[in-house]
Amino acid sequence: MTDPASDGACVATGPGGATLRRLNLRADANGSLAYAEVGSGLPFTPKRMFTVWDVPSGAVRGRHAHRTCQQFLVCTHGSIRVQVEGREGDMEFILDSPHLGLYLPPMVWAELRGHSQGATLLVLASHAYDESDYIRDHGVFLAEIHRT
Amino acid sequence: MTDPASDGACVATGPGGATLRRLNLRADANGSLAYAEVGSGLPFTPKRMFTVWDVPSGAVRGRHAHRTCQQFLVCTHGSIRVQVEGREGDMEFILDSPHLGLYLPPMVWAELRGHSQGATLLVLASHAYDESDYIRDHGVFLAEIHRT
Repeated sequence: MTDPASDGACVATGPGGATLRRLNLRADANGSLAYAEVGSGLPFTPKRMFTVWDVPSGAVRGRHAHRTCQQFLVCTHGSIRVQVEGREGDMEFILDSPHLGLYLPPMVWAELRGHSQGATLLVLASHAYDESDYIRDHGVFLAEIHRT
Repeated sequence: MTDPASDGACVATGPGGATLRRLNLRADANGSLAYAEVGSGLPFTPKRMFTVWDVPSGAVRGRHAHRTCQQFLVCTHGSIRVQVEGREGDMEFILDSPHLGLYLPPMVWAELRGHSQGATLLVLASHAYDESDYIRDHGVFLAEIHRT
């Protein structure tokens, strides 16, 4: 089944400019394929990718913001809840299909929890790893977003 | 557990310059994280991403080569067998961990089969989608690789 009406559509907008997007989808009897290209569903050119898996139930991951790095999150198996906080407040997104992508701009705080059994997260990032780009102190994050 | 000795290492080389790579890994009690950056594990800048899932057992996917597009395949859940063919012959790679990435240069023929229950494939591609870049006829592929 092809659903061109939904291709690359933004389905929810959250704090700090975070957006949940429905990826382009092509599905038939041989399987489902969801895709995004730079300029069509993917808002930046990735320089880094990582996957996260084997996360125990009860664990919380993330708990940081980036000063400049943009990220695009896809839960490729299972489901994960992502709490996103920006200047306007916070909002929870549920990633439960490879068909969904969550775009996180810089300066949003994200916490990931509720990993189902076997949940796997893919993250595409706009920049190479740079520890100085991370804000890991929530108090520092709040001070910075309310100062600007 | 961190295994710096294996970070980004090439663990097998196949026909046409295909290479199986062990991604950089960071694992602890909160889960496992495998990563690659452009220039460190990822041999090109991605312009496109897609995921493939819900593939029935017995199905064969792929069955094409690209003239210019490079690809990087990661099985983010379950396992998939990838048969790669180049001028030198063919070779089968087994992708059974998000910790492994298979780099496919242009002008290799790839067929994917043996998808386990719940298997999910991530592909990063060096170019935007262009149907004219695909060689979908195996005879044409063989003629082209043996002509050059």
